[in-house]
Amino acid sequence: MTERITPRSENYANWYVDVVTQAQLADYSPVKGTMVIRPRGYAIWERMQSALDAMFKETGHQNAYFPLLIPESFIHREAEHVEGFAPELAVVTHGGGEKLEEPLVIRPTSETIIWSMYRKWIQSYRDLPLLINQWANVLRWEKRTRLFLRTTEFLWQEGHTAHETDKEAREETLRMLDVYRTFAEEYMALPVLTGKKSESEKFAGAVDTYAIEAMMQDRRALQAGTSHFLGQNFARAFDVQFQTRESTLDHVWATSWGVSTRLVGALIMAHSDDRGLVLPPRLAPTEVAIVPIFRNQTRDEVLRFASTLREQLSESFRVVLDDDESNSPGWKFAEWELRGVPVRVEIGPRDIEQGTALVARRDTGEKSPVPIAKLSGHIAALLKDIQASLLERARAFRDENTIEPASYDELVAFFADGPGGFAVAPWDGDPATEARVKAETKATIRVLPFDGEERARGRVCIVSGKPATSIAVYSKAY
Amino acid sequence: MTERITPRSENYANWYVDVVTQAQLADYSPVKGTMVIRPRGYAIWERMQSALDAMFKETGHQNAYFPLLIPESFIHREAEHVEGFAPELAVVTHGGGEKLEEPLVIRPTSETIIWSMYRKWIQSYRDLPLLINQWANVLRWEKRTRLFLRTTEFLWQEGHTAHETDKEAREETLRMLDVYRTFAEEYMALPVLTGKKSESEKFAGAVDTYAIEAMMQDRRALQAGTSHFLGQNFARAFDVQFQTRESTLDHVWATSWGVSTRLVGALIMAHSDDRGLVLPPRLAPTEVAIVPIFRNQTRDEVLRFASTLREQLSESFRVVLDDDESNSPGWKFAEWELRGVPVRVEIGPRDIEQGTALVARRDTGEKSPVPIAKLSGHIAALLKDIQASLLERARAFRDENTIEPASYDELVAFFADGPGGFAVAPWDGDPATEARVKAETKATIRVLPFDGEERARGRVCIVSGKPATSIAVYSKAY
Repeated sequence: MTERITPRSENYANWYVDVVTQAQLADYSPVKGTMVIRPRGYAIWERMQSALDAMFKETGHQNAYFPLLIPESFIHREAEHVEGFAPELAVVTHGGGEKLEEPLVIRPTSETIIWSMYRKWIQSYRDLPLLINQWANVLRWEKRTRLFLRTTEFLWQEGHTAHETDKEAREETLRMLDVYRTFAEEYMALPVLTGKKSESEKFAGAVDTYAIEAMMQDRRALQAGTSHFLGQNFARAFDVQFQTRESTLDHVWATSWGVSTRLVGALIMAHSDDRGLVLPPRLAPTEVAIVPIFRNQTRDEVLRFASTLREQLSESFRVVLDDDESNSPGWKFAEWELRGVPVRVEIGPRDIEQGTALVARRDTGEKSPVPIAKLSGHIAALLKDIQASLLERARAFRDENTIEPASYDELVAFFADGPGGFAVAPWDGDPATEARVKAETKATIRVLPFDGEERARGRVCIVSGKPATSIAVYSKAY
Repeated sequence: MTERITPRSENYANWYVDVVTQAQLADYSPVKGTMVIRPRGYAIWERMQSALDAMFKETGHQNAYFPLLIPESFIHREAEHVEGFAPELAVVTHGGGEKLEEPLVIRPTSETIIWSMYRKWIQSYRDLPLLINQWANVLRWEKRTRLFLRTTEFLWQEGHTAHETDKEAREETLRMLDVYRTFAEEYMALPVLTGKKSESEKFAGAVDTYAIEAMMQDRRALQAGTSHFLGQNFARAFDVQFQTRESTLDHVWATSWGVSTRLVGALIMAHSDDRGLVLPPRLAPTEVAIVPIFRNQTRDEVLRFASTLREQLSESFRVVLDDDESNSPGWKFAEWELRGVPVRVEIGPRDIEQGTALVARRDTGEKSPVPIAKLSGHIAALLKDIQASLLERARAFRDENTIEPASYDELVAFFADGPGGFAVAPWDGDPATEARVKAETKATIRVLPFDGEERARGRVCIVSGKPATSIAVYSKAY
């Protein structure tokens, strides 16, 4: 905590790395492109996992585990899949001291190995739907990496479901997108746009890809989760047919959906500030830090009082009492701010005399004295308020930085001097138009909102002037 | 459930595979030596993880995550470590379409990558102890594999701790061994012997390895968990020194300890029977299965009643109501027995009239009518009793199959016609003696009990006739 965090205004990318490393969330590992998730970072991921896992189980999914290594030939079975993933593969050529007959790849995603098993498990409509999720590590060889946001290896969950009908699979795809939206908003305090991806941005092997997209504090977009309708593509590639209710044979319909440790990066980028991490209370491993303030003659009394306070508050909250005597209170304030603990309680001899404690909230920095008797209720309300405020603040920030440009010139200007933000405009649906915008502004289409078609009716594409088929949200992205 | 399970008496190995595959705990994957953990098997692992994770946190450990891939040169830094693991490595030679400058190995265990990070994180005694655990997949190229018990890839936890002193690290090693013993006995209902491993059986790179060893139903031993005192071996290999309280420099003292999905195999082999899985209630994903029994005219009444019952019991237990009408009650009884659900509740029209339900316990097969009003209390007591009975039964079985041979001839005879069991005898501490026993009986030393030295005092080795240094427990093992 003796190091300085680069201010966001000075260099946003350095600020991010400073927060991640100084708050000890992650560290660079000796293998290029990979990272170590340190205990304080992993504790956030554990809270994310636990909330998401409960939501998956509530929607009928079960966890399983499939192998890390996939025969290289499997990746080649689905034409678009191999095109998308072949350049990113890590290949195992030797095992147990011998050269392997067929190279194995480390899973970049598990559709192929999972559908090779589904072939064994699915014979009839009675075996459907099959609703499986896996928590696992995956590996994609990335050229440019960034802690949490893009690393060669990352942790994630991947849901893989099999259904009788097109309709059911499409419903599942959107159900899980909505689970992600709910999680982002209610736990991460992160407002997200939802919608479909354009052809150029969809998952290799999907019919349709849907995403949740968030705006970071530097006004860039971050894709925080995706849900894919895979049609019958993987069922065809792995010959997974089932006996229908009408006793005919049909290929199974599929979805897949995932979020990863990238969410930890999104959380940091969305809420943190120049003093360090800011965590929404629902995902904060520690909700309350108690810092006792004393001199030699008041030491015992204050520590005894603080310790009782810790016990009381622990009944309702995740509490730490920082009674380390080798650091000053000022140092501790800065340290708990760096770590993003939502509420700090300061307690000294005068507070004890007056029957109050000083309560500081991390998000705004506000401090106020609170009667000890009302402390627990006050903190409960404060945590709720912080959770809601962070969401509101992020939503207001996004809205302030979203424009509906009236002309292509305005759109180009918006992205000319920096990240810009979100630009919402009618699009003609032509990949060439999308490519032109990307080439000229570096912005890409993040999502086509669900009501985009309706909103585009009767309007023309802001770039080409041709009739628009949808509204598109353009942004520079991570 | 239409397939037959091979009886244990006919072929124990086939019985095991039948139980695992028919209860749908795991399946063979297309990659040799690896397996798929299916939802019903993974649910057991999740319960194990959750109990163990809480025990690790109670003893002050935090979770983190280190990279899957390790530079090959790291494995070579510790002389014994490389000797032990080099033959089992999977090697990544290509990434992102290019040949790598240095090959990377998939972690067979993570001491090397973790100690390379500890070097960055540990400077002073203030940074110690460092108590980190990771839940991860690891890979060891195995020639002979067996579902759950030995697979090329497996899931596990690995604790890696760093300490100021020899004494503190040794205490940690034994503390975690005791956590494993407690978990095995209290959750898995699996009695275990604890003790030190002989030199030939210890972990590659450890000073001392300790283990928990259990007896399976075929009287073979299974090593269910290990805890290693690593001395300063890895700190030396990775140059991890710290400033002591006396301002001198010293290498850090280390431990590592792990249990894996092998525990699921141990659980099956310890308690299951010819009808399928038998699960101790604390690890059973479902504790109670309700099977309604009805004809057309009683259908609605029985289902309504069963559904109310499910709601009531769900307040205290993990309950499933099997109201699928395409299967007969008899089929369902067999199915829930195969799946190992500890308690089955059968409810039909006559039961409703009489205000009772028929309660069957999985372990003994006993059935008894229980008044509905007393059902919840009865089931709570029954689950406790099943948990305790399974442990007692396994302990009695182990004791019945443990001998203290009076001569080497008796020991040889014990192992001559099959697995034998555990043979407890004084040992002279000589690796040559151990090797001779192994060559002549196929039995190895599983553990040297903690009181082995004391018990051996004044006695002679059963094999060599030389003065004994310890008691040894010999057994054939998985």
